[in-house]
Formats: sequence, structure tokens, C-alpha cells
Amino acid sequence: MTDIAAQRMARLREKMRETGTGLVALGPGSHMQWLAGFYPHPDERPALLLVGPNKAGFLMPALNAEASKLSTSLPMFAWADADGPDAALARALAEIFPKRSGRIVLDETMRADFALLVIDALPGLARAFTDDTVGTLRASKDDAEYRKLKASALLDDRAMQAARAALKPGMTETDIADVVKEFFAANGARVQFAIIGASENGAHPHHSTGGRVLKRGDAVVMDIGGRLDGYPSDMTRMAIIGEAPEGYAEVHAVVEKAVQAALAKAKPGVKAKEVDKAARDVITAAGYGDYFVHRTGHGLGIDVHESPYITATSETVLAEGMVFSIEPGIYLPGRFGIRLEDIVILRKDGPEILSGLPREAFVAAG
Amino acid sequence: MTDIAAQRMARLREKMRETGTGLVALGPGSHMQWLAGFYPHPDERPALLLVGPNKAGFLMPALNAEASKLSTSLPMFAWADADGPDAALARALAEIFPKRSGRIVLDETMRADFALLVIDALPGLARAFTDDTVGTLRASKDDAEYRKLKASALLDDRAMQAARAALKPGMTETDIADVVKEFFAANGARVQFAIIGASENGAHPHHSTGGRVLKRGDAVVMDIGGRLDGYPSDMTRMAIIGEAPEGYAEVHAVVEKAVQAALAKAKPGVKAKEVDKAARDVITAAGYGDYFVHRTGHGLGIDVHESPYITATSETVLAEGMVFSIEPGIYLPGRFGIRLEDIVILRKDGPEILSGLPREAFVAAG
Repeated sequence: MTDIAAQRMARLREKMRETGTGLVALGPGSHMQWLAGFYPHPDERPALLLVGPNKAGFLMPALNAEASKLSTSLPMFAWADADGPDAALARALAEIFPKRSGRIVLDETMRADFALLVIDALPGLARAFTDDTVGTLRASKDDAEYRKLKASALLDDRAMQAARAALKPGMTETDIADVVKEFFAANGARVQFAIIGASENGAHPHHSTGGRVLKRGDAVVMDIGGRLDGYPSDMTRMAIIGEAPEGYAEVHAVVEKAVQAALAKAKPGVKAKEVDKAARDVITAAGYGDYFVHRTGHGLGIDVHESPYITATSETVLAEGMVFSIEPGIYLPGRFGIRLEDIVILRKDGPEILSGLPREAFVAAG
Repeated sequence: MTDIAAQRMARLREKMRETGTGLVALGPGSHMQWLAGFYPHPDERPALLLVGPNKAGFLMPALNAEASKLSTSLPMFAWADADGPDAALARALAEIFPKRSGRIVLDETMRADFALLVIDALPGLARAFTDDTVGTLRASKDDAEYRKLKASALLDDRAMQAARAALKPGMTETDIADVVKEFFAANGARVQFAIIGASENGAHPHHSTGGRVLKRGDAVVMDIGGRLDGYPSDMTRMAIIGEAPEGYAEVHAVVEKAVQAALAKAKPGVKAKEVDKAARDVITAAGYGDYFVHRTGHGLGIDVHESPYITATSETVLAEGMVFSIEPGIYLPGRFGIRLEDIVILRKDGPEILSGLPREAFVAAG
């Protein structure tokens, strides 16, 4: 194992002891990437990283076993298509989890059939997802991860500026998204998403960018992110074409005030739900509570969405080194939506914003 | 609902009655795409298409509800981030699955936490995955799907020819994969995968294409596929650079004979395991049984891997209209691997191969 993998495994074992966890089972994906530094080709063949109190190993389809051995020194419990995974899983559990005591922690993102394979092999044990083990460990970033996230955010700033430069009446949402994609590709990154939503389309928080032609008087939601050196970015800014639609300035000011309230609230030791409440209270007090239809933020690391989630109900206690978005929004059906999003890393005294781009609306000629 | 969606829903209800299924729960992915014609943005927020004996509807994150209504007329049980999905799921189940009798069928590909949300809301009911409902329905293709798969396969033939034209000593595996990617992009498709494995790398069935430089005497596995108009292709051919490595011709002949044995066996009414056995027996008889480490094939449709799986243990009875791969292989560690793969659609009298490209090894100058 690499030093980083060994360190992370040791930290996980500590969390397992704290939480009474006897077994952690991760599927091919971000949790496995974080813990082992790789994951095998994901398909319908069950592949699991199993971590017990003292031993760990992989349940692995035979056709991926040799290649995986190049990436890990952990033992491989391989199974061939002709046999299916049951016997190999039984051998792995006998070795890694011999006492079968303590709760089992399942990767919430893995395929349902992978999870049920583990559950059915270990009847009667309490189960949980990774929130208080792998999830909480992944939420706090080390310096190497911070530097990658920061570089990714600064590239996203430049992608946003490229998109702004392309805005004019007659362009479509898709045209602008293509500018973003090309910018990332030309700068050694790849686009993760480019949501461009003009006026009434921006009132759908997860609008699918399409052929809508931009015109004077549009307010445009621009939510873009790329992936650089394994780490993503995610930022939302507003643009207006020529002149803002009626009522725009007032609503933008409310959303900006909500961002600032959340930033002011976010400190180590504060619960995630208090940060959500800070943003939500501003919007509710302004009379737009029914139009803020989503949570205030989400963690960002290997995944674009990961722990900690900044929701109205999250009891997660924020800690130094956690990285997450602050992104309140107001969505007025048929008119326009406004969302302002920054990624922050939580420092001792409060949040440091990764982006260097102000949150004011950009006004394009039109 | 569109006509296609209504027809598929009716066929699913019939399968539900045949199999004693009271509820089908599908996550955002290919099963939902097949049944509803779309799926919402997939993330960690639970989204489900729930189908009961007489009613159906979506559990849907509020922020995707409005956009989803543009794609379906089925009722939406929306939940906001601030509330979580539990109450909306309870409302949906009360409406769609009021009697709570019969088994529940879960989308095996959906996230573990989505599946456990349903399981925990319906304690005590038997559960199954989609094999004998949605899975079996998706396995047999209609004419519109056949035409798309055929067009996709013929484009894959041309991509393989472009890759062959680029083969020469000094090129890397990645160089060849890039040719494939560019070919698909230039022809209105996108690459799904391009596994290029030279000699010892080809002995890993799921080799990650890399910087290995091609040289005279290499045997190269080329397993490539694209996606055209929503439907994928998947084909493996062999190439040799200048001259074949020692022992190549004999092993290639064994794999070709295995392909032909599987093709001869595949007929409506035959079990999938009999087709696997036909290929495996040839390879075992030639003394290479231990080096054929995977199943003989997999279905292909919306997904590159889907039902029916052609494995040693599959009791699935093959039926007219089913589309699947025949792809035996022999992998000699440290030396080379040979896999030959064609996609077939099963007709009344046997399989029709979608590709028009012969399976002989291509010999590049070198």
C-alpha cells in the first residue's frame, strides 16, 4: 500500500472502533478510490473492498484480478464467471470478518445487488451507510487535496469568464455550454457539467441545457464545473443580457444576502443545519421561502456531491478542512431563477472561498 | 405517455401478474429509460419509478419535478431537501401499492441506499431483482431497436478499420484508442470504450489501455464500441504486427472454433448456459480451459452489458429477438490474449451477426 492508502486505512480502523463497526464494504467508486487509490472496472460483476478489524481484501471478478494486483497489495478473493461470487465472498468474510460481530457499513453508492449480496451473507447484523466512517473522513481534506481543489476552482473562474465573453443575443444555451466544454478540454481538464438556463429555464434548478436562444432581457443561470487532476470544481454565477428582467435586482440581493449569512454562520463546531437555516431564514424573511426548493450546499472532493451535505435536517458538525458549497437560490416559475454558488474550505475562523470571481451578475451587451 | 411507453407498461404489468410481483421500483438509469423514455438527473437524492398493479408514479426530488413533468404524464410524489424522501415515499406507496401484497422487484443497478429505502418501507415482503420482469422484457428487441443496433454495429466495423489502418510499430495502445475515439466523434457517435491490449497486456481481459509501444511480433486485442442514436456497439478483433508471436495461430483457431460452436448452439428455446458450454467445451478440449476466465457473452441494448448473460450457470431460455455477444477468449499470462467477439440477434433459425467484418486476425505491416 502507498503511504496515503496506509494512513487512510489506519484512520478508518480508528473510526470503525469508535462506531462499533465490524465490517466496511465498498463498491467500485469514489469511496474505494479514496481508500485504495484505485477501483476496478465497474460493471455488474460484484467487486468489493472489505475492511475488517485487522484484515482487508478485495472480492474481485477473476478477469479484473491480475490488473488490480498492479494497484494494490491487499489480498484478492477472485471469482470466475462460471462460479459466481458466493463462494469467494464466503472465503473473504471468513478471513476478514471471522467474528461477525459489530455493525456492517455499506457503501451507499454501490449497486443494490452488491449491497444485498453482503446483507444476505451476514443476516441479523445491524447495518449503516458510510456517513460516520468513510464519509466523515473524506469530508475533511488534507493539503494535497486542498491544492488540487483550489487549482480546479481557479480554472473554473476562467471557464466562467470564457462563457461570459461568448454571451450575446442569438446564441443558444447549448452554444454557451460548448464554449465551457472547449475551454476545459483546451486546458487539460474535462467538463463535469455546464448548466446554462435562460430566464424561465433557469427557474428549473436542474435544467437540461438546450436550444433556447438568448435574448435581451434574459437572466441566465450559469452553473459550471470541470475536473482537473482528479478534483472537480462547481460554481454558479448569474448573467443578464442587456437589461435585467423586472424584479431581478431585488431577488438577486436577497440571494446574495443569504450567501453571506451562510458564510458568516459556517465555523468549525457549527451543525450543517444551522448553516442551511442561516441562508433559508434570509430568503423566508424576504417572502421567497417557497421558492428556495433545495438544500444550501453539498460537500465536494473526489465527487461533485459528497459529505457534508448542508441541509435543513443535517446534524453533521462542521470541522476544519471540510469543503462544501454554499448555493442558495430562488426559482420563480415561468420568470427566472437566481442561484449563487461558491465552494469553501472551512478554516479555524470560518470559510475560505476557493473562487476569486465576485458574485455580482455579469451584464452582457445585448 | 407515449405509445411505446404505454405498450411497455402494459407488457410489464403482464409480467408482474405472471411472476406474482406487487411492486417494481426502478432508479434513474437504463431500466427507467426503457420503461418511461427518460430518467431524471441521477444523484444521491432518491428518485424512483414505482409501478404497482394498477397505478404508477415517480418519487422525485422537488428540484427535478418540474423538468421531469415535461417527459412524463405519470404522477409525481415530490420531496424537498428540507423534508427528506420518507413522507413522499409513504404517500406514493399508499397510492400505488395499497394492498402491499406480492413480491417487490428492485432495480439491481440502482444505488444501495435507494433500494434499502424501499426495503425498509416494506418489511417482510419477498424481494427480487428485475431478471424475470423488466430484464427479460428488455432482452428481446423490437424492430426499431434492431435497426439502431445494426447501424451502431456497422459504424463499429468502420471504426475497427480506422484503427487497423493506424497500426504500426512505434504507435502506443493509447494512440490507437485515440483514433477510435476521433472516428466515433467525427461520425456522430461517441466512444463507449476502446480496449487496446498488446501481447502481454492483452492477456488481461479488462486491460487499461496505456503507453505500451507496439512492436513487430505483437498480437493486439482490439475491443471497441461506440454509441450511436442511443444504442451501443461492442466488437473484438485481433491484429498482429508484422508477424504473430509463437503459438498464436493455433490458439486463434481454437477461439474461432469456440465462437462457431456457440453460434451453432444458439437457438430460441436453448438455455444460455448451453451456449456457454458449447464454447467452453471447445476450449477445454484443446487444453486451454483454465485460460478462458470469463463468461461467453452478455446482452446488449440500452446498456453495453444487460440481460441475457451467457454464463455457465444461466438458466435463461434464449428467445427470438434477444441480442447478445459471443466472445470466448484465451488469456496466456505474460504472452498474449485472444478474444473474438460478435454481437448477434437471435432469429427463429439461429443467430444473425450484426457486424459485417470477418473474424480473421488483421496483419499490419511491421
